[in-house]
Amino acid sequence: MRAGVFDSGVGGLTVVKSLLEHKLFSEIIYFGDTARVPYGVKDKNTIIRYSLEALEFFKNFDVDIMITACNSVSAYAIDELRNNAPFQISGVIEPGVMALKNRATSKDATILILGTRATIESKKYERLLKKDGFLNIESLSPSLFVPIVEEGLFEGTILETTIQHYFHDVKEPDFIILGCTHFPLIATAISRYFPNSTLIHSGDAIVEFLEEKHQMKERFTETELKLFATENPDGLKKIAKLWL
Amino acid sequence: MRAGVFDSGVGGLTVVKSLLEHKLFSEIIYFGDTARVPYGVKDKNTIIRYSLEALEFFKNFDVDIMITACNSVSAYAIDELRNNAPFQISGVIEPGVMALKNRATSKDATILILGTRATIESKKYERLLKKDGFLNIESLSPSLFVPIVEEGLFEGTILETTIQHYFHDVKEPDFIILGCTHFPLIATAISRYFPNSTLIHSGDAIVEFLEEKHQMKERFTETELKLFATENPDGLKKIAKLWL
Repeated sequence: MRAGVFDSGVGGLTVVKSLLEHKLFSEIIYFGDTARVPYGVKDKNTIIRYSLEALEFFKNFDVDIMITACNSVSAYAIDELRNNAPFQISGVIEPGVMALKNRATSKDATILILGTRATIESKKYERLLKKDGFLNIESLSPSLFVPIVEEGLFEGTILETTIQHYFHDVKEPDFIILGCTHFPLIATAISRYFPNSTLIHSGDAIVEFLEEKHQMKERFTETELKLFATENPDGLKKIAKLWL
Repeated sequence: MRAGVFDSGVGGLTVVKSLLEHKLFSEIIYFGDTARVPYGVKDKNTIIRYSLEALEFFKNFDVDIMITACNSVSAYAIDELRNNAPFQISGVIEPGVMALKNRATSKDATILILGTRATIESKKYERLLKKDGFLNIESLSPSLFVPIVEEGLFEGTILETTIQHYFHDVKEPDFIILGCTHFPLIATAISRYFPNSTLIHSGDAIVEFLEEKHQMKERFTETELKLFATENPDGLKKIAKLWL
């Protein structure tokens, strides 16, 4: 079983990490559009155009499924990808919503969605959650989280001050959706601020989703990982070594 | 006299502000490549390619000079622009170095260059300063300054914590080159941390440079400003209203 994982940059490696841990694939081809990152501030048509280019890239490989680790792509481009792909397509938003549903004991659960501007503006998480009967939803776009993670500041005063800046008006929710590939890397600090919230991580969610909805039950003893980037592939490989 | 001002995004408006204040042009055409911002993390060839595309854009207008407000463009693409332009080209790095020279009373002056990764790695400021006999030079790429400015946090705890993070090992220099269009917007906070340093601002520097080196002495009672962006032009116009 071969997966293509698409992300706007290096962040999607947090999703790859979960896929590797659960041994779902014999091969993972990662394609990070590092030359044009970040997508989260771009508009819908640009995100769709870039995603279709990534689709063409994966057509070079005989993948069984293309997973868009990037939430902004999952928010805007899934339909267009499905309409043009000769293989299966999965985003991370439907999986995130499913993972939350699997954990929630009541529709009254309070939910905080964290994402890039594009993801939040798409209202895709919100729409799916509301369709499932969840109504206590708040959305927030903590723009500085991404550059802070990219600066490697997974702990420390800057991160804590920034968390305080974005969260000081927010009541501790039952669930926090980490709706951006970068956010799992600061999950510890977020959990320290909101110790009673359950965090929904795209990587864990996609694994659950592939098992439940795509019936992927097979496990592979080894996964070959191939990394591609539109710019600075060595940087991607360095981060992969660090994170994985 | 008509100028084309090119920037990777909205930051170049800090340069436009100086040009407007000094009434050097009857018309300014601003072109921000907001769809592909930031340039400061891209590699040399990409920056050159994007800059040549901007050059083609300005060929549609009858400009007398194209000014690259972006330091990363000024660091890498000036020669290529000059080789292909039917009008004059000015970056902001030579002007910055000239402005510093005009203010320095000794070659022993200590200088701190702040810039994006691309600008710092190009060593263009450093090379020009060393050629002029300045030797006490330190360079720093405070990556979080740009997103913090873009989040509108020109003051406050996050900015102060971040300034402390980048500067705590730096001895107060005689001069600080604000080698990125975004940095003038947090000049007040930088000056509070280093009260005795003289800040070199690209906008003021380019005005001095155009007067001294391009002999621009004429003043215009009005400047018509035309704004173009590769994405979200309304966002650019909103920020222009706010900053100018």
